[in-house]
Parts: sequence; C-alpha cells; structure tokens
Amino acid sequence: MTATTSSPLLDSEAVRARIDAVLREFLRDKASAETERRLPPDITEAVRTFLFSGGKRIRPMFCVLGWYAGGGYGLPLEIARAAAAVEMFHASVLIHDDIIDDSDTRRDQPTVHRRCGTGAAILIGDFALAWSDELLHTAGLSADRMHAALPVIDAMRSEVDYGQYLDLRTTGRPTSDLDRALEIIRYKTSAYTVERPLQLGAALAEADDGVAPALSLYARPLGEAFQLQDDLFGVYGDPARTGKSNLEDLRSGKHTALLALALGRATPRQAERLRRLVGDPRLDDHGAAECRDLLTVLAREPVEQMIRERWLRAQRALDKAPFPPEAITALRRFADALVARTA
Amino acid sequence: MTATTSSPLLDSEAVRARIDAVLREFLRDKASAETERRLPPDITEAVRTFLFSGGKRIRPMFCVLGWYAGGGYGLPLEIARAAAAVEMFHASVLIHDDIIDDSDTRRDQPTVHRRCGTGAAILIGDFALAWSDELLHTAGLSADRMHAALPVIDAMRSEVDYGQYLDLRTTGRPTSDLDRALEIIRYKTSAYTVERPLQLGAALAEADDGVAPALSLYARPLGEAFQLQDDLFGVYGDPARTGKSNLEDLRSGKHTALLALALGRATPRQAERLRRLVGDPRLDDHGAAECRDLLTVLAREPVEQMIRERWLRAQRALDKAPFPPEAITALRRFADALVARTA
Repeated sequence: MTATTSSPLLDSEAVRARIDAVLREFLRDKASAETERRLPPDITEAVRTFLFSGGKRIRPMFCVLGWYAGGGYGLPLEIARAAAAVEMFHASVLIHDDIIDDSDTRRDQPTVHRRCGTGAAILIGDFALAWSDELLHTAGLSADRMHAALPVIDAMRSEVDYGQYLDLRTTGRPTSDLDRALEIIRYKTSAYTVERPLQLGAALAEADDGVAPALSLYARPLGEAFQLQDDLFGVYGDPARTGKSNLEDLRSGKHTALLALALGRATPRQAERLRRLVGDPRLDDHGAAECRDLLTVLAREPVEQMIRERWLRAQRALDKAPFPPEAITALRRFADALVARTA
Repeated sequence: MTATTSSPLLDSEAVRARIDAVLREFLRDKASAETERRLPPDITEAVRTFLFSGGKRIRPMFCVLGWYAGGGYGLPLEIARAAAAVEMFHASVLIHDDIIDDSDTRRDQPTVHRRCGTGAAILIGDFALAWSDELLHTAGLSADRMHAALPVIDAMRSEVDYGQYLDLRTTGRPTSDLDRALEIIRYKTSAYTVERPLQLGAALAEADDGVAPALSLYARPLGEAFQLQDDLFGVYGDPARTGKSNLEDLRSGKHTALLALALGRATPRQAERLRRLVGDPRLDDHGAAECRDLLTVLAREPVEQMIRERWLRAQRALDKAPFPPEAITALRRFADALVARTA
C-alpha cells in the first residue's frame, strides 16, 4: 500500500504542478505569437492572471484519476495537456459565470469583468474556451483517443451550460423544491466537475466498457457532496479562505439545497423572514447574520448529513469498482480531501 | 460552362437549404433530448430563432466552395454538417458580439440579450459554441479529416476573438490610422469569414499542399472588400434591408477604414466636427446626416475604390489557382455576388 500511494503521479500536488507547467508553457507560446504579430498582450495576460491567482485544479485531477482508473499509467504529456484543457475550459466557465452572477471577487481578486469590463471579459472567456480546444487538439493524441475524448467533452460543455441556465432561472426565486436544487447540482457540478473529467481520463486510456459506469457511481454522489458543501461555504464560508464573498449567494437568492430545505421546514413566520432577506441585493451583515441563524436552525445539520451520506455512497461505489488498486486508493483519498476541505 | 455552373451543388440557394436542413435537424434532436430530460426548451428555441431569422450563410458556403476547390465533389452529409458547424459558431460570435456592442437589433429582431437578458445571452452564445463543436464532432468525419480540420477551426476561433478584441479596444477612439483599421478587418473578417472557412473545406477534401495558399490569395482581398462594404452599410445602409441600425457604428465610434480615411483627409475643422459627432452615444438623425455628408465628401469614393481593387485582386488570384474549373467559376460568382450585394 505504501509503495502504491507514494507514487508521485497520484500525488495531487505533483499533478497540479504538472498541469500548471503545461498551462504556463501554452500561454508563453501564445504570448510569443502575440508579440510576433503585434497583437496586444492583454488577453494572454488576463487568462494567466486568472488561472494563477488560485484554483484547486480539481477537474484536471479527476481527469488524471480517470486515466488511472481506466488502466493508464504515468502522466504522459498528451494526458497532462488534455487535463490542462479541462482547467482552461473551467476558466472560461468561471469568467462568464462571474459576469452572469455579477460577482465582484473570485480567488480573492476582482473578477475579470470588474478589471477589464464586461465586453472584454466575454471575449476573454471565449478565448479561454478556444484555447481549451487548442490544448486538446494539439496534445498529440492518437486519432482513436481523440475520437473517444470528443463526445465526453461535448457532453460536459452542454451539461455545465444547462446547469448554469437552470441556476440563472431559479436564482432570485428560491422555493422549497429540493429536487430542483439537486437537479441543478447534477448538471452544474456532478457531471461537469467530477463525472465527465473522470470519464475523459478513462476514454483517453481506452478503458474497458465497465469503467465509465463504475466511475459514474462514484462521481455522482461525490459531485453532489462537493456542491452541497460549496453551498455551505457560500453562506458560512470565511471570505479570507474561500476567496469569494459569503453574501452574494444570499443577496442573489441562489436556489440551493440548503435554502430549499430551510423553506420546506420553516414555520410560516420563519419562511416569511427568509423570503424577505434572501434575494435582497442590499442585504447587509446584520440581515445576513439573521439568515445564517435561520438556515442553521432549519437546515444546516440536514445538509451536512446529506454530504456525509453522499460521501459514503461514493466510497462504497469503490468497493467493487473494476479499477486498478492504485486508482481506487487515490479516488478514496481524493474524496476524503474534497469533503474535508475548509474552503 | 453552362453544365458546370448549373450544378445544383454549387448553387448557393441549394447549399443554403441543405445547411439549414442540417441545422434544423440538429436542433430538433436537441429539443427532443431536452423534453426527455425535462430541461427547459428555451435554449434550443433561442438558438433556432436566432439562426432562422436571417443570415446569408456566407461562411458555410465558403466551406463548401473550399471543399470543391480542394477537389471534393457533391455535398456529402459530413461536409454539410461541418459547414453547418461554421454557421453555428457564427451564431455564437454574433450573440456575444451584440452584447459587447450593446446592439438593439440584429436580423430585424431584438438581439438575444435584449430578449433574454445579458446573463442568458452569454450562456446561449456558449451553447451555440458547444453545439458547433458537437455538429463537427458527430459529422461522421474520418479520423484523418478531423485531424486536418481541427487546426483550421482553432485558428479561426482565435482570429475572430482577436479581431473583436482589437475592435473593442479602438471603438470610441477612432483615429486616422488606416493600417490599424485594415488589421482589424484581417482578423475579424478576412480570416474568419472567408479564408478559414475555405481552408476548412479544402482540409476536409484532403487537398494538395498548393490549395490552401491559393485560397488565401483569393480570400484575403475578398474578405477586406466584404468588410469595407459592410462598414459602408453600417453608415449608409437602409435598416429595412440590412436588418441593423445605421446609427450604431457612428454612435459607438467604430474605428472603420471609412472613418480613418476621412479623418486623414479632413481639414482641422472637419476633423473636429467628426470627432465631436462620431462616438456620441446620443447622436440623433440630424447629427448622423451631417456625419454621412462629411464621410461622403471625404472618404466614400476612396473606400468604394478600395473595394473594387480588392475584388479585382480576388478575381485575378483565381486566374492561376490550382482548383477544378467548376470551383473557380463558383468562387468568381460568389465574389461578384458578395460585392454586388445591397445589404
């Protein structure tokens, strides 16, 4: 066991460093091309600043874990580039998402549209998306691997867009509909953050047919646990640790599972208070404190229970999964770390 | 000659109908999947409305022309789908572009962000982009064809983004710098609208090495002519014909070749008037008429001359081009039609 888990390639710090090196090199090449063609360096600079002001690199890590689960070994450059493409895509999603949510800060910095303006930020997000494709297309993958990877990427992109669209439609109109909140999570997070990156890695490993469904059994509950916890950070998190506001979700009235559960369990008077406070764009610290108290009394513990149940389901899914032991160990540890995180 | 030019597959109306059929079928499948998964039908509906309220399908036509120039024949479904992917990509570019320019109308309809809000419009543009990829990836192309196509698509995407970024940076700050205006055109239009779609078609035909550079010799001047004319429509066009405002370019202060030339030739007093009027967001019909008069006196004829010269260069490039005669005839006619268009 010791020998397996000490493999540097399943050490998430080592994977992260490798992904970052790929991203830096790609952006260095883009910057050289811009200089050569006398294009302004702003775009490359904006994408670099965004990518390297933070980010946990969770999605590329899942891609690499999927590669291992599918029988891949080591971290060849082409797999590192495909994993880096997922992170570049994520940058694009976040840059656009921050415009949509009109967020002020991300990763402890002003959001891209706050720094560069909305028009430029839309384009910078579009660049990150185009470059995500380019990273993958120039990864040196064989035609067969590329063929296996593209449908997974296509599904991932549509799913996150649907998740964000559902999120947008329900924000400001929170209800006690827990199923709806969980459906948004399935598109926005379980598929996008966990399941598809894992399946991409497995596809690149040209894994056996049983691998992708087994990955889903692990990915779906884990993705839900991850997002449920993220929603708790959105309300109870310390901005100094999370890098984002703990007022925005309340001010915008995000339709989270926490809020849906609270509304479902509230007395008429509590529900009325919650509805008045949540979604008020001018909610102040005092009002936010009242919200937090109500949410704590009504729904925090049940949400924490949901997180634990889902984490357990993800762990159990690994008991009979047809992956190499090393991959199973790494998937277990990563699930632990995700659920134990503090930001 | 008659036999060749009457080939239905190089008839732009027939190509257009074919592309539209592919797009409709793709969106029908998306709508079914949405119904099945109980997702809201809004996205598919918004993309469909946008695609079918107008559009000249110039880029898919160039893709098909490139396919012919590279020795392809007929219009197999996989090529029609690749060409349709280019149109879907174009929808994504326009939807985002209208947000960036804060335009009110496009194709005689309210723009997507006016109808659905900015947040939803960003996502709808992102969907169109994801679906453009999906159209291509599921076209049934051989691995070799896909491998040849992807770098062309990647280049096209970056180029249009750079063009739009340069456009955004110079809008509101017009100068007499004609070279800068032409550089924007090269990225925003020549590469994106003409050169890359042609090269994509040629790549799909697995054309000989000489084909792509010969296409560029035709594409670059033609793309410039097309955009120079589009800039004239932006100022002198009849909104009832063009489907877009003839005030917006003046109000936003687009750095066009027309304006750069006018500023370069203006007396100090004329230049001062132009600088005062152009870029004024509240410019009224009276002020716009004064702008048009000044631009007519100073630069309209030289711009029309530039268009003719470029059209001629495109035509001459075909004299020695290594394309099948049928392709050359079609490319000549399409260049004629583009430059003779009235909207």
